[in-house]
Amino acid sequence: MNLKRTHRCHELNESLVGQTVIVNGWINTRRDLGGIYFLDVRDRYGLIQIRVGIELPEILRDRVRKMTPEDVIAVKGKLALRPEDAINPKMASGTLEVLAEEVELLNKAKTPPFEITRRETGSEDLRLKYRYLDLRTQSLQKNILLRHETAQTVRHFLNQEDFLEIETPILMKSTPEGARDFLVPSRLHTGHFYALPQSPQTYKQILMVSGFDKYYQIVKCFRDEDLRADRQPEFTQIDIEMSFVDEPDVRDVGERLLAGVMKAVKNIELPLPLPVYSYQDAMETYGSDKPDTRFDVPLFNLDEIAEKSDFQIFRSVLASGGVIRGLRVPGGSRLSRKQIDGYTDLAKKYGLKGLAFVKVEEGGLSSGISRFFNDSLSEELIEVSGANPGDLLFFSADTWTTALTALGAVRLQLGKDLNLIEKDAYKALWVNDFPLVERSEEEDRFVAMHHPFTAPRPEDEERMETDPESVRAQAYDLVLNGHEIAGGSIRIYREDLQEKMFRILGISHDEARQKFGFLLDAFQYGAPPHGGIAFGFDRLVMILAGTDSIREVIAFPKTTTAQSPMDNAPDIVDEKQLKELHLRVENEEL
Amino acid sequence: MNLKRTHRCHELNESLVGQTVIVNGWINTRRDLGGIYFLDVRDRYGLIQIRVGIELPEILRDRVRKMTPEDVIAVKGKLALRPEDAINPKMASGTLEVLAEEVELLNKAKTPPFEITRRETGSEDLRLKYRYLDLRTQSLQKNILLRHETAQTVRHFLNQEDFLEIETPILMKSTPEGARDFLVPSRLHTGHFYALPQSPQTYKQILMVSGFDKYYQIVKCFRDEDLRADRQPEFTQIDIEMSFVDEPDVRDVGERLLAGVMKAVKNIELPLPLPVYSYQDAMETYGSDKPDTRFDVPLFNLDEIAEKSDFQIFRSVLASGGVIRGLRVPGGSRLSRKQIDGYTDLAKKYGLKGLAFVKVEEGGLSSGISRFFNDSLSEELIEVSGANPGDLLFFSADTWTTALTALGAVRLQLGKDLNLIEKDAYKALWVNDFPLVERSEEEDRFVAMHHPFTAPRPEDEERMETDPESVRAQAYDLVLNGHEIAGGSIRIYREDLQEKMFRILGISHDEARQKFGFLLDAFQYGAPPHGGIAFGFDRLVMILAGTDSIREVIAFPKTTTAQSPMDNAPDIVDEKQLKELHLRVENEEL
Repeated sequence: MNLKRTHRCHELNESLVGQTVIVNGWINTRRDLGGIYFLDVRDRYGLIQIRVGIELPEILRDRVRKMTPEDVIAVKGKLALRPEDAINPKMASGTLEVLAEEVELLNKAKTPPFEITRRETGSEDLRLKYRYLDLRTQSLQKNILLRHETAQTVRHFLNQEDFLEIETPILMKSTPEGARDFLVPSRLHTGHFYALPQSPQTYKQILMVSGFDKYYQIVKCFRDEDLRADRQPEFTQIDIEMSFVDEPDVRDVGERLLAGVMKAVKNIELPLPLPVYSYQDAMETYGSDKPDTRFDVPLFNLDEIAEKSDFQIFRSVLASGGVIRGLRVPGGSRLSRKQIDGYTDLAKKYGLKGLAFVKVEEGGLSSGISRFFNDSLSEELIEVSGANPGDLLFFSADTWTTALTALGAVRLQLGKDLNLIEKDAYKALWVNDFPLVERSEEEDRFVAMHHPFTAPRPEDEERMETDPESVRAQAYDLVLNGHEIAGGSIRIYREDLQEKMFRILGISHDEARQKFGFLLDAFQYGAPPHGGIAFGFDRLVMILAGTDSIREVIAFPKTTTAQSPMDNAPDIVDEKQLKELHLRVENEEL
Repeated sequence: MNLKRTHRCHELNESLVGQTVIVNGWINTRRDLGGIYFLDVRDRYGLIQIRVGIELPEILRDRVRKMTPEDVIAVKGKLALRPEDAINPKMASGTLEVLAEEVELLNKAKTPPFEITRRETGSEDLRLKYRYLDLRTQSLQKNILLRHETAQTVRHFLNQEDFLEIETPILMKSTPEGARDFLVPSRLHTGHFYALPQSPQTYKQILMVSGFDKYYQIVKCFRDEDLRADRQPEFTQIDIEMSFVDEPDVRDVGERLLAGVMKAVKNIELPLPLPVYSYQDAMETYGSDKPDTRFDVPLFNLDEIAEKSDFQIFRSVLASGGVIRGLRVPGGSRLSRKQIDGYTDLAKKYGLKGLAFVKVEEGGLSSGISRFFNDSLSEELIEVSGANPGDLLFFSADTWTTALTALGAVRLQLGKDLNLIEKDAYKALWVNDFPLVERSEEEDRFVAMHHPFTAPRPEDEERMETDPESVRAQAYDLVLNGHEIAGGSIRIYREDLQEKMFRILGISHDEARQKFGFLLDAFQYGAPPHGGIAFGFDRLVMILAGTDSIREVIAFPKTTTAQSPMDNAPDIVDEKQLKELHLRVENEEL
C-alpha cells in the first residue's frame, strides 16, 4: 500500500491540526461546492471530511470528480480546522477537515443496490442478498460491535468467577429429543452419521463428572425446526454448568452475569437480587411464564365473585373445574367495540371461547356482562380488581392454563397498544418451580417440561410416582422484558432418582441406554451434585440492541426458510460428493 | 445440598486453622493408619487431607470404611495443622488437615477401569472410552486449564488491539477446494446441502468488504480428510483478518500475539521481532519450510565442491539441473553403520536415492565417499561445512526440493536422536515469500500454494503469466519449534488481478463464479486492501502443554478414524430421520 493510513477517523482531533495525516476508507458522501469537492470518508471508527480545493492539480481533481460513494480511497493532507460556518456539530470530527494533497483510488465500487446511508432504500430480501453492503450500515455496525462487547463482558465476568471455557464437539452423536437434529453423513463409516448439537447439555454434565467444577462456553447450537419467524437453524448460547450448587447459587451467577452485561454495555444498573416468581404466581399474576413487568397491569382472581354472580357461563366453567380470571385495562372504557372484538379474537387464538368484559363508571359497571353483577358484587369486583372509573375489565373463563394464557396474551397486546410499556426500561425476573413433567396428549405420556435430567424439588420427590404433575422441578428461567433469555435447572445426579424419572416418562431402560448411555455410565463413576443455565445469546443481544429481529444482531443470518441469500446455502452438490458418502437423494417420498 | 462447601481446596490455608470448614470433592486416595482413616479429597483446585479419628461415632467411621477412591463426598470439620512429622512438603496444603466431624457420601463411584492418580494404568483406547475419567487426571486437568488461559489471553490481546470478535456461519455453502467438505443435508430443501466450513476464509474477507477493519474469531473448522495421525475432523482456529495492511503489519500482530501468549501462560519472553526467512532460505538452511531452530545444525551448499570432485553421481545430478547439499552431524563419526543406514532409509522416504557420507578426522576425511575428494577438496569441504574432527557429513544429490527436504528430515531426526534440541526452548520464526503457485503433476495445471485469493508480491506481478512459478506470494507462516502454528497472506482485492490469477490456475470464469461468486460480487462494491492469518489453536496449545498429541489438549477428541469411543459417534440413525431428509444409504458402490 502506498498511502497507508497514519490515523483511523476517530483518532483525528484538534490536537493534531497542522499535521499531515493519511486516512483510508470508503466515500460516505460527496458534495461539489463551487468547484471544491467535499468527501466524507468513512472507516469503522468514524467519518472525516476531505476538502479537495480548486488549487489542486487537474489530474487529481479529475480523479476525484469521477469518484462515487463506496469507492475505497486513500487521502493524504494536512488536518485543519473548518471555517466557523462549516462546523457540523452532529459529527464527532465536525470541526475538522483534511486539506487533500494526494487522493488515491484504492478500489472502485459499483453503485450499490441500496444506499448505505439510507438503509430503508433496500428491502430486507435485497439487503440479505447484499449482506456485505448491509453490514456497512450504521445500525448493523453498531449491533455487531454491541454483540462483540457483550461477548467479552460475559467472558470477563465468568473468568473472574473461576469458570473455565471448554470447547465441546460439534460433530456428536444424534439423540433426537425435542427438536430435530441436523445430521452429518460420515464418509469413512458408510451409513453412519454425526449430529450437530442442539445444545452441549450432555457434554457439560460430563465435564462436571470430570471435576471441572465451573464450565462455560459461548457456543453454536443447531436445531432443524420447521419455519418459524425469528428462529435460526444455528444460534448461539452462553452455556454454563456448576458443581456442588443448588438453585440459588446458579440464579445468583445468572443474575450477576446479566447485571454485569447491562452495566457494561448499556450503563444500566439492574437492582439485585431479581424478583423470583413461581411458575404458579407468574401465571396467576401475568398470565405468562415469561411476564413483561415493564407495565404494572396484573391479572386477578374472580373465582369467588363469579361463583356468586348470575352469569351461568362462569358458574358452569367453575363447576367443571375451570377458573375465572380478570384483567383491568386502565382507561379502557374508551375502547371501541371493534377494538374489544380485536382482543377477543386474540384471546380465541389462545383457546378461549370468548372474552367477557365490563366497563367501570362512577358508581358502578356498565356494558358487556355488567347485568350479571348485582350492586354488592359490582362493588366487590371493583375492589378486587382495583379498578377506577374509566377502566375496563376483561374476563376469561376456562381451564386454568387457557384462562390465564389467553388473558396474558391480551395483557401484553394492551401494553403495546396503550403505550403502557415504559420506554428504555429493562425489567428482569426469575420464574421457577416449573412443573417437572407435563402430560403430552399427543404421545399419551408424561414428558419432561425441561429435560429428563432436571431434578425435582426434594420435598416433592415422594409424589413423583403418585402425582407426578404436582411435582415441581428445580428449574428456572430468566426473563427480560417479557423474553425468556435464559433457562436452566439443577440436574439429577443419583442413579435411583434418574431411573424413577425415566419410569415416569415411560422411557424404557434400553431406550435410555441407547439415547444417553454414555452419560448414565459416567454418572456411575462419581457424579457431583450439579446444575446450570444457558442464555440465548442472540436474543439477549437483540434486546440490548433494542431491535425486534434476531437477524439484526447476527452477521450472516439465515432467512425463515433457513437459507442464506448471499451465498446461496443450502445448495446442490457434486454427484461425486454424494457418491463418496454412499448417499442417494430420493426425490419422491420413500 | 446439606453439606455445601464453604471453601474450595486451594482456599484452605494456615490463616484458617481452627475454623470449621466444609469441603466437597472426590476421594483421591485413602489410607488406614492404626484405626485412623486418612482421605485425600480432590477438587479442581487442589487436595486436602481429611483425618477421620478413632473417637468419631462408629456409624460415621463405618461409612468412611466403605468409601473408595472417586466417591463424591462432603466433609465438615475443623481445619488443623498436621503434626510436624506428618507434613507433606509436596502438597500445597501439606501442613493442613481437616479433623472430620461429619462425612457424607454424595455419590458412590464404581471402581474406575484405570487409576485416576496413575493414568498409565489405562491404554489410550480405554481412556478415550472413559474420557470423563481421563479428564480427571492431573495432565488433562492441567492441559484444559492451559487451553482456557491461552484462549483468554488471545482474546484479551486482540480486544486491546481493537479487533472485533464476529461469528461466522457453521452452515454454509459447499465450495470443495483443498480438503473435502462435511455436508449437512437440508430437510426443508430436498437435495440441497449445507457444508461445514473448512475455515471462515470467505466470510472474513466479506467482513473486510463490510468495513469491520479488524476481525477475529476462535472458531471450529472442519475437514473430512482420510485417516491421518494427529488430525481431527473438527479443529479450532484463531482466525484473524485486517484491512489497509501489508505483510509486515499482519506479521507484527501475529508475533506480538504469540509473544503475549508465551508470556502469559508460560512466563517466557519471546524476543521480537522474530527472524524472517524466505521460503528459499528456510529450505536452503534447514531443508524445511517449518524449520526447528532449537538446534543449530544448518545445511550447506556443496554444488561447487561436488563439481570439482571425482564422484560421478554428484556430477551427473548437477549436469541434469539437480543440486548437492550437505549436513554436518556434530560428533557423528561415532554413528554405527546401522545408524547411518537408518538415516538413509529415512531420506529415501523423502524421495532421495541414497545418502552419501564422509567422516571427519584429524587431518582429513575417511569412510563413505571420502575417496572421491582429494586433499585440497577435502580441506575446502571441511571449511565450507564448518566440520570438526569427530563430525560426520551427510550429502544429498537430487532435485532442489528433494535434496533439501530429505536432508531436512534427516537433520530433524538427528536433532532428536542426538539430543541436540534444547530442552524447554521455544524458537519461533517466520517463513515468507512462498511461491504463489506450484505445478500439480496430477491435475496437469498450476495450483495455488496458499489459496487463489493470495496476492503476489507487487514486483513479481509482471511475471505472473510468463513465469508463474517464479512469482513469490505475499504469504507467511509462523513456525514454533518446527511446527507451523499459523499461516496467512495478503489477499488480492483488485478484480483484474484476481482474474489473472484464475487464468493462471486454469479456473474458468464460470467455475470461479460457481465457487466464489458471492465473494467476487462483494469485491466489486469497494473491497479494501486486506490480509490475515490463522493460528492452529489445538497445535499451539499442544506445544505450550509440552505434549506430542493434539488429543491431549482437546476435551473430547476423536480418534484417527474420526470416531468418538465415548459417545459412539458417528452412529446409525433412525430410518425416520433419513426419510425426512429424502436420503437413502447405498451400501454398494453407486
